[in-house]
Amino acid sequence: MTGRGLPMAVPAAGLPTRVRIHEVGARDGLQNEKVTVPTQVKAEFVRRLAGTGLTTIEATSFVHPKWVPQLADAEQLFPLVSGLPVELPVLVPNERGLDRALALGARRVAVFASATESFAKANLNRTVDEALAMFEPVVERAKADGDGVHVRGYLSMCFGDPWEGAVPVPQVVRVCRALLDMGCDELSLGDTIGVATPGHVLQLLAALNEEHVPTSVLGVHFHDTYGQALANTLAALQHGVTTVDASAGGLGGCPFAKSATGNLATEDLVWMLQGLGIDTGVDLGRLVATSAWMAGQLGRPSPSRTVRALSHEDPEGQEGREAHKEQ
Amino acid sequence: MTGRGLPMAVPAAGLPTRVRIHEVGARDGLQNEKVTVPTQVKAEFVRRLAGTGLTTIEATSFVHPKWVPQLADAEQLFPLVSGLPVELPVLVPNERGLDRALALGARRVAVFASATESFAKANLNRTVDEALAMFEPVVERAKADGDGVHVRGYLSMCFGDPWEGAVPVPQVVRVCRALLDMGCDELSLGDTIGVATPGHVLQLLAALNEEHVPTSVLGVHFHDTYGQALANTLAALQHGVTTVDASAGGLGGCPFAKSATGNLATEDLVWMLQGLGIDTGVDLGRLVATSAWMAGQLGRPSPSRTVRALSHEDPEGQEGREAHKEQ
Repeated sequence: MTGRGLPMAVPAAGLPTRVRIHEVGARDGLQNEKVTVPTQVKAEFVRRLAGTGLTTIEATSFVHPKWVPQLADAEQLFPLVSGLPVELPVLVPNERGLDRALALGARRVAVFASATESFAKANLNRTVDEALAMFEPVVERAKADGDGVHVRGYLSMCFGDPWEGAVPVPQVVRVCRALLDMGCDELSLGDTIGVATPGHVLQLLAALNEEHVPTSVLGVHFHDTYGQALANTLAALQHGVTTVDASAGGLGGCPFAKSATGNLATEDLVWMLQGLGIDTGVDLGRLVATSAWMAGQLGRPSPSRTVRALSHEDPEGQEGREAHKEQ
Repeated sequence: MTGRGLPMAVPAAGLPTRVRIHEVGARDGLQNEKVTVPTQVKAEFVRRLAGTGLTTIEATSFVHPKWVPQLADAEQLFPLVSGLPVELPVLVPNERGLDRALALGARRVAVFASATESFAKANLNRTVDEALAMFEPVVERAKADGDGVHVRGYLSMCFGDPWEGAVPVPQVVRVCRALLDMGCDELSLGDTIGVATPGHVLQLLAALNEEHVPTSVLGVHFHDTYGQALANTLAALQHGVTTVDASAGGLGGCPFAKSATGNLATEDLVWMLQGLGIDTGVDLGRLVATSAWMAGQLGRPSPSRTVRALSHEDPEGQEGREAHKEQ
């Protein structure tokens, strides 16, 4: 449809004029892939993503290779892309990871906290507070390095947890406050299992504001497990959020349904933002081509609906005409 | 996740307290299925849908069997379900279809108009105005039958058209006005190719209000081809719309991408509405079970993300724990 004046740009009241997309496909998207993606392919993926106009592309993770074998090549990958004229944040789980990232010249890092005890235990084998204590020197040293490394704090399970169910808002606010107090520059509010709905999103954002957390330091990270990611994003934009995480092609498996998707697909997000007349700087056609290419590398179709629709587009074809028959 | 307090019900300001879902799975969802679904299976599908708490279930279409072979059994199907305590609208393309529907006791019918010339030509082999002229006696006779048959006017291609691109809002408003003037009780605004975004939706709704079309007669019918359906629905709800079309399990092929979905999945809609504390009367668990059953009948997985997630749910299992590992 692109190129036919679609989506038609019609701004809506109360929305930002510009949104920064924090692209997580190369890290969050690939990390659970079972088949090892060659380093050169990852580098090419990041290069192509940068060519679409995306300005913040999370490149990899400096975790212990034992935990995320897919990203064990962080040392090899990062130098291949670090010259690109985009921001390239990397995940660092601890001081060792920070050391490795800084040694390669990374100037944006991210730590990964949990709002719930169950997930902190499952993912980090620590309590929430033990995990925060582990991040404290990481953030402190990052901020003290040179003119200061930018630190993002991921917070997972902000809305629901697979073991605990609904997560109380005050519990999330407390961990957000702690991450900011230790020096994080921005937070990414993660709906890791995709259960949030728009009212819940607005409630959390308002509660954070009440605790003097400005919306400007908040990003949202929605998963599409229940199809809610874009509606939740719209609600967040209406609240004033201007940083949205998304994964090119919808890369990133859903924990409970192999056939369903995890991360919000960047293309579906860009379609909506373009339709709302909100500037992202992203060329949707190039992005779709990049995700279609990556889907080819992984050997399976992209779960992004926009990628599928634009990759199969043939509006003049017989198939299209026939399928449109209603009677 | 249902049963674990998820989705957590958190109302948002400015939304309706109750929404009526117009379930289209048995008609719109099945009509393009290539494999013939036995009449008894269709009847069981409608019965199970009624058992979920849905109150308006579009049952079938009295079109000429040549055009929609899948629904050629309308005469056999309707009597099997007409005793159910729910509204059972049926599609009638012309006076002949109306005669057939009325003979079986149908008290709710729907006509199917197009906002664009290209689709009117492709679907009805008529101009937009010729199609409207064809519907006029249908609506007139329906309203004059007994104490009056309820008439819904479907309007397709309200936002974009595969041949014409973006559809001008005034063009849509004109056809809406004509359908109401001839006596339609309600309209369903269709985004047949799924290209709409929230600002465009709000613009059309506002333009209709300006032409003295009250929001109370408007339903929205979004397709998820580009993943926009639920975000568009949220915008429509914020405008005051309280009738939303959806298809159980997301049944209904997307014209341009066999692997992608067409209709908004009722389960994804119910998840959002339940999360927003909006009453629908629908039991989500039963609905998911119904769609999973129907997917089994069709021999392929449901495209509804909520159906997939809840059908595969195993939060305590090893797979869940492993997949949640972030580092």
